[in-house]
Amino acid sequence: MTTPQAIDWNSLASELTGIEIINDPTQVAKLSLDYYHFSPVLESQLKDKRGNIVVRPTTVAEVLEIARVCVKYKAPLTVRGSGTGNYGQCIPLNGGLILDTTRMNQINWIKPGLASVQPGVKLAAFDKEAHKIGWELRMAPSTYRTATIGGFIGGGSGGIGSITYGVLRDRGNLNAVQVVTLEDQPRVIELRSDQVQKVNHAYGTNGIITELEIPLGPVYPWAEVIVVFDDFMTAARFGQALGDADGLIKKLISIHAWPIPSYFAALSNYLPEAKHCALLMIAESSLEPFQDLVREYGGEVTYQKTAQE
Amino acid sequence: MTTPQAIDWNSLASELTGIEIINDPTQVAKLSLDYYHFSPVLESQLKDKRGNIVVRPTTVAEVLEIARVCVKYKAPLTVRGSGTGNYGQCIPLNGGLILDTTRMNQINWIKPGLASVQPGVKLAAFDKEAHKIGWELRMAPSTYRTATIGGFIGGGSGGIGSITYGVLRDRGNLNAVQVVTLEDQPRVIELRSDQVQKVNHAYGTNGIITELEIPLGPVYPWAEVIVVFDDFMTAARFGQALGDADGLIKKLISIHAWPIPSYFAALSNYLPEAKHCALLMIAESSLEPFQDLVREYGGEVTYQKTAQE
Repeated sequence: MTTPQAIDWNSLASELTGIEIINDPTQVAKLSLDYYHFSPVLESQLKDKRGNIVVRPTTVAEVLEIARVCVKYKAPLTVRGSGTGNYGQCIPLNGGLILDTTRMNQINWIKPGLASVQPGVKLAAFDKEAHKIGWELRMAPSTYRTATIGGFIGGGSGGIGSITYGVLRDRGNLNAVQVVTLEDQPRVIELRSDQVQKVNHAYGTNGIITELEIPLGPVYPWAEVIVVFDDFMTAARFGQALGDADGLIKKLISIHAWPIPSYFAALSNYLPEAKHCALLMIAESSLEPFQDLVREYGGEVTYQKTAQE
Repeated sequence: MTTPQAIDWNSLASELTGIEIINDPTQVAKLSLDYYHFSPVLESQLKDKRGNIVVRPTTVAEVLEIARVCVKYKAPLTVRGSGTGNYGQCIPLNGGLILDTTRMNQINWIKPGLASVQPGVKLAAFDKEAHKIGWELRMAPSTYRTATIGGFIGGGSGGIGSITYGVLRDRGNLNAVQVVTLEDQPRVIELRSDQVQKVNHAYGTNGIITELEIPLGPVYPWAEVIVVFDDFMTAARFGQALGDADGLIKKLISIHAWPIPSYFAALSNYLPEAKHCALLMIAESSLEPFQDLVREYGGEVTYQKTAQE
């Protein structure tokens, strides 16, 4: 790898005809960073890191071309989706070219239980389409509205839905990926089943993900529920019992000891002082037997919103 | 209770105007028995048991009328669906009236995740309707084609699907039942949530089930697969690992040590001599990562049929 300072970026860019390139420093700065500033440690280490140019391909052919040019110029290449991670995984430590996948946002197909997508499809946008045939992503992070599927696979681990399906690295939660390599002759490779672990959670460093085949979960009408408890261990045991109850369908079980609930400002009306809480998503068809479980553990439902509300 | 011999059955029957009554001895004999003869012990104990008459109501009002008349005459009453059980649960030990629920076979409504049905709806017939909106019963016994939902709740315990949802008695697998009592003034009672356990698996002895609200599971395209192993404990561990793999969607895991597979005559082409087998139903979207698990345990897939075949 040459240092980015030694690279003739105009020359490099001139070889990428037809591909969207961003040179504007403000835009490049914005697309060089993620939510690293959540960390006071990373804040000082990463705040000045910048790429040299940003490219926004729309096809695998364009990604191959970008890979070829990066190899030719020995330019660092950093892959990113929406940059919603907060560990600095898509910040270019040594400048170089930033490959923004957000224009590769096609859904190839969706069928019951399975879909094929480009990496730049946003999670919520995907679900909007999949919901039309009764399916959705098995799990999603808190950055659901803006995060891309490729970025989630590259840098994510699990999320809402993991109580049922486990985490992304668990067998069966990612069926296949197509990647472009950064070899002397960049290639398009398809990795299937266990082979996907070579690029799963690898931040794009082992290959540029250009397509993903992802299993789906069925859509239930999900109700959002908050239950509060006087005693933390009772709340924890309630969460465990709900997790173990195969007959109760759930998407989220999130147990919080006071004073953590005091930070959930938007929910303060439903989180009484000094109480421990369970934030839950429950299938509406399970709500009634679920309430028996709440009674058994002496919990109090302070909030309940059905899927229609 | 009076002995059935002392009851004037013609008089009793005359009070049940408008309700289908069966007096023909051959028919009454047939509807007095279940698959008890699977047991050599029960065979001798039950083979001569007969009811006096069979009634086939179609509405709750008719069931109430039958209950009223049975109380008035102190006549024994035995409830049955299709009689596919094999423990003699719906065989009248002391004669009396047999209440056959198979004409109460209306589906009241089906929505995503939940349905309301009369007890005489057959399991497979129900699924045929529910499949139209992408849902199905969470679990089903081997008598799926002929058994009724009411009979399954009255006498069943679990079945294909229990690997995911647990068994019928587990919280969340039966939302509500309506029952008719056999009191001096028979009543219609609705039991919801935990209250359903009063009649769940009680063979109709605690009340005549006249309506059920049952949670559903999503339909996946299910593939049927047979995997064989040289070593039984490897087969068992494979089954456990598959059961624990939250990312792999399954409906059946059934592990059999040789020589049990030698009794599965219809499958003999796929069950090699001296090998131990796993009979499986796997979501098609999970088939590919599932095969990695098979490889990991050194299993051999001898049969695979997709949902379309």
